[in-house]
Amino acid sequence: MEKKRLIVIGGVAAGTKAASKAKRENPSLEVFIFTREGDVSYAGCGLPYYIGGMMKERRELVVRAPHEFKLEQGIQIFVNHEVTQILPAEKKVLVTDSKKNQGKEYAYDYLVLATGASPIVPPIPGVDLDNIFTLRTVLDAENIRKLVEGGTVKEALVVGGGFIGLETAENLVRQGVKTTLVEMAPTIMPGFDQEMALFVTRNIAQCGLKIKTGTKVVGFAGNEEGKVQSVSLPDEEIPAQLVVLATGIKPNVELAREAGIKIGPTGAIAVDPFQETSIPGIFAVGDCAENYHLLTGKPVWYPMGSTANKTGRIAGINIALDKKVEKFPGVLGTAIVKVFHMNGARTGLTVEEAKKAGFEPEMVWVPTHDKSHFYEDCADIITKLVVDKKTRKILGAQIVGDGVVDKPIDIYVTAISLGATVDDLSNLDLAYAPPFSMAMANTLVASHVMANKLAGKFSGLTYQELADKLKENPDTYLLDVRIEDEFKTVHLPGSDNIPLSYVRMEAEEMDPDQEIVVVCKLGKRAYLTYKILQELGFNNVKILEGGLEVYPYEKETGEKES
Amino acid sequence: MEKKRLIVIGGVAAGTKAASKAKRENPSLEVFIFTREGDVSYAGCGLPYYIGGMMKERRELVVRAPHEFKLEQGIQIFVNHEVTQILPAEKKVLVTDSKKNQGKEYAYDYLVLATGASPIVPPIPGVDLDNIFTLRTVLDAENIRKLVEGGTVKEALVVGGGFIGLETAENLVRQGVKTTLVEMAPTIMPGFDQEMALFVTRNIAQCGLKIKTGTKVVGFAGNEEGKVQSVSLPDEEIPAQLVVLATGIKPNVELAREAGIKIGPTGAIAVDPFQETSIPGIFAVGDCAENYHLLTGKPVWYPMGSTANKTGRIAGINIALDKKVEKFPGVLGTAIVKVFHMNGARTGLTVEEAKKAGFEPEMVWVPTHDKSHFYEDCADIITKLVVDKKTRKILGAQIVGDGVVDKPIDIYVTAISLGATVDDLSNLDLAYAPPFSMAMANTLVASHVMANKLAGKFSGLTYQELADKLKENPDTYLLDVRIEDEFKTVHLPGSDNIPLSYVRMEAEEMDPDQEIVVVCKLGKRAYLTYKILQELGFNNVKILEGGLEVYPYEKETGEKES
Repeated sequence: MEKKRLIVIGGVAAGTKAASKAKRENPSLEVFIFTREGDVSYAGCGLPYYIGGMMKERRELVVRAPHEFKLEQGIQIFVNHEVTQILPAEKKVLVTDSKKNQGKEYAYDYLVLATGASPIVPPIPGVDLDNIFTLRTVLDAENIRKLVEGGTVKEALVVGGGFIGLETAENLVRQGVKTTLVEMAPTIMPGFDQEMALFVTRNIAQCGLKIKTGTKVVGFAGNEEGKVQSVSLPDEEIPAQLVVLATGIKPNVELAREAGIKIGPTGAIAVDPFQETSIPGIFAVGDCAENYHLLTGKPVWYPMGSTANKTGRIAGINIALDKKVEKFPGVLGTAIVKVFHMNGARTGLTVEEAKKAGFEPEMVWVPTHDKSHFYEDCADIITKLVVDKKTRKILGAQIVGDGVVDKPIDIYVTAISLGATVDDLSNLDLAYAPPFSMAMANTLVASHVMANKLAGKFSGLTYQELADKLKENPDTYLLDVRIEDEFKTVHLPGSDNIPLSYVRMEAEEMDPDQEIVVVCKLGKRAYLTYKILQELGFNNVKILEGGLEVYPYEKETGEKES
Repeated sequence: MEKKRLIVIGGVAAGTKAASKAKRENPSLEVFIFTREGDVSYAGCGLPYYIGGMMKERRELVVRAPHEFKLEQGIQIFVNHEVTQILPAEKKVLVTDSKKNQGKEYAYDYLVLATGASPIVPPIPGVDLDNIFTLRTVLDAENIRKLVEGGTVKEALVVGGGFIGLETAENLVRQGVKTTLVEMAPTIMPGFDQEMALFVTRNIAQCGLKIKTGTKVVGFAGNEEGKVQSVSLPDEEIPAQLVVLATGIKPNVELAREAGIKIGPTGAIAVDPFQETSIPGIFAVGDCAENYHLLTGKPVWYPMGSTANKTGRIAGINIALDKKVEKFPGVLGTAIVKVFHMNGARTGLTVEEAKKAGFEPEMVWVPTHDKSHFYEDCADIITKLVVDKKTRKILGAQIVGDGVVDKPIDIYVTAISLGATVDDLSNLDLAYAPPFSMAMANTLVASHVMANKLAGKFSGLTYQELADKLKENPDTYLLDVRIEDEFKTVHLPGSDNIPLSYVRMEAEEMDPDQEIVVVCKLGKRAYLTYKILQELGFNNVKILEGGLEVYPYEKETGEKES
């Protein structure tokens, strides 16, 4: 029996995973990987941290070297080999060895496209100047780090407030470079709702990164040597000897398109749940391939290192066994980012996305600790939970804060993937000890608050609704129930202060028919106040959901007026 | 309409939660809490950390003070009031005010027993000496800390290697006290399998705590003032000016028993899923109440602060609404502990427990990182995953290591609670970025290894099976495939060393019919070797599961023999 040959185009996460898995599952396969880059199997998501100097050597980024693939797994890797054409009818690829500048044909039985994605370079005047980089390959990261450690860079500018932009900016600050980040959208962290992103932005204000949102770069100016020196925004010039463009990526689909492989509505390569493309025997994995959303069933394109590994593995199995045995169930758009001491994580659908998909979403903000209040590194998070009112199923969550966000988001990911309702979460036997969790885990607290809201146990106002109400009627009675010291530090303009402990007594002098909006830091004391006032016969009380922690608009400082 | 009255006996976690929830849900209830202690609503799980000085003031342990319950929630708390009898027929309790030494009757409509649990004091000669403590109340913790900070304690001894014992010992070491921990069982950390507990024990050897397992305290000796001075084990005397007994707790059920309330097979108060006892209108919550195991349906008694909060909440709701609306689904025996830099977490069934419960368990050990290998605080964990072979459902997990264990255990808790199979886990869209996870999350890796094992893709030996085999045939060929430096540091006696990269070449000189046991650090390189040898026609290869990290028996140091 002749050996069958698998050719993989692309040697980073998805490509090497597909190759390794296929070879392990079916050792009789001959496996070739072609990559136009000089490196394989590197941690693309580690590049910002390489710039920051977290790893000393570039080899720490590399998971496995080409010779290890050969020796350990019997996989042949061709670096600096670019596949220039796929000939599906003949089951061949044309390959150029870019060092020797030689072309050659290789036949395949199975083909995996793991061609990845490329940075989008915005057509801004001056974008071709030296020391303006994108960040996608080990070489990019090396060049940036070399420049930074060379000492000539005093100021840097990052274009784009997505995850790569933020991580890169943080690492430039870590290297002692005065850094500015410019984002066109009103907030950083695409995929997060505004108030969640603003919460992060407010909390990293002291970290040494200047963030400018809602504006854009209109030009770059260089010196005589052609090196960038400054960046033009519509109304200012920012000096910068280094610019990193993190303005998004696009899937590399040209090879596939030219070969007649179907491109999906997202612009990435269309695949079935087994990762096979429209041409049998040709698979696509990783950043170049489309995914399906677990909740909507619709095609989406969320290029992630984690998905790259999973889809590579799926294709590897199906190729090795030469039948469609393993399905990729789809993605939830889960994403997570650390920015200085703050963390942000999201999964599933936002309220807007849920509406578009035909759900009837309800949402709550639930600020909590991440562990016992007395534990030394106890920190805070805000969870925004979205469920479907009809089925009570969890649809999505966003979590931000300086506390642990990856654990709760992964609990939601697991729950959503298994079709859980908010009630399924409310008594989970999650692990509790003071260094790890609150006695009532924050994921459970969030489910309780949601259940209360669904049952109509409180009447809430979102920060937008409160802002609208205040515009309409600036005299709306705002009752802040925090203690005096908290109130002095910051409060809503025009609000009155009666600490929770005094509400029961002072309520005697208040009009039970008056509209009252109760405000506190997190929403919990407002809820308790709501319950007290309800008990006392007040019938027009509302609470500010998520409290002042979430409220992103104007606040002021000072004593209570009297 | 006359107000109905709820009386709660016990004012720590479960009692105050039941009271608060009932009052919030039904403000017309009159709610009394009686507690024989002077404190309420304190963080019992925080007591070891109070001893260690993590919190400066005792009030940091307290979640809410009695006057706050009164002012904010309208709940009346009677501290230092002991309920001495329940009269179910008359719906009354007899209460003694221990400060005034006065007795009084109180009528109730609903009664909640939140009487907690008490430390078991082993009947060892000398156990009544001064400075021998149990640790259950704020007063206990204060007394221990006062003694320690008084400076007269140079040496301390903790009896019991459970979680409280370990946390207390760690905190005594943190206070600079030379501390010894004595545990009767062969390993610390009850509820964990031996090799998992031994892994933790080995890794905290340098932390300053002396651990003696498999031995017991036979006596305490004191000085003239009646203060403990030393502790006798069967074969040695250990000087100690402070002893903490952490030898387990028992539920406080005397009041309930005398009132004719049914005690369950575990010795705790029997309750239905709504937390009601055998007498209608009387509920039991927290450490005094029995639970049901989610997987076996059998009564169990796992006293945990988290369960106390949840069962308190459930009883509160059902009482407030005067009908059985909210069910407690049961527990998984989830537990977690931090011991110095090491963590341990478990949930669900062990292999032994699963067998007893009628399942057909399969298990794997899967050592992994907790985040990207290059990230600065990347650390290691070992997951032991248990599934049912027939249904492929996840039954349990144990995780130990210096890496993050709470996230993966909570993912398993969520998955088990929702009835997930190992296949449901294998492609979860968990959150990935280098500071938080590996690109292929360790929970997913563990599910892949398990799926491989269930599919018979490798032939493994547990450490016990290998030890048995070596006893039977000391000449079993052990092939260690780590690199030379690793081998030199530590390896199995008599093992040969061929690093993975050379296996393919050297295999040509090996006998394909020979029995080979492949060994590496974590099991992964052994698996790759297995695949290579399988491809080359070897048919009698086995791998040491979990690698040398799990193997708890004799190892040696030095060069390879040649």
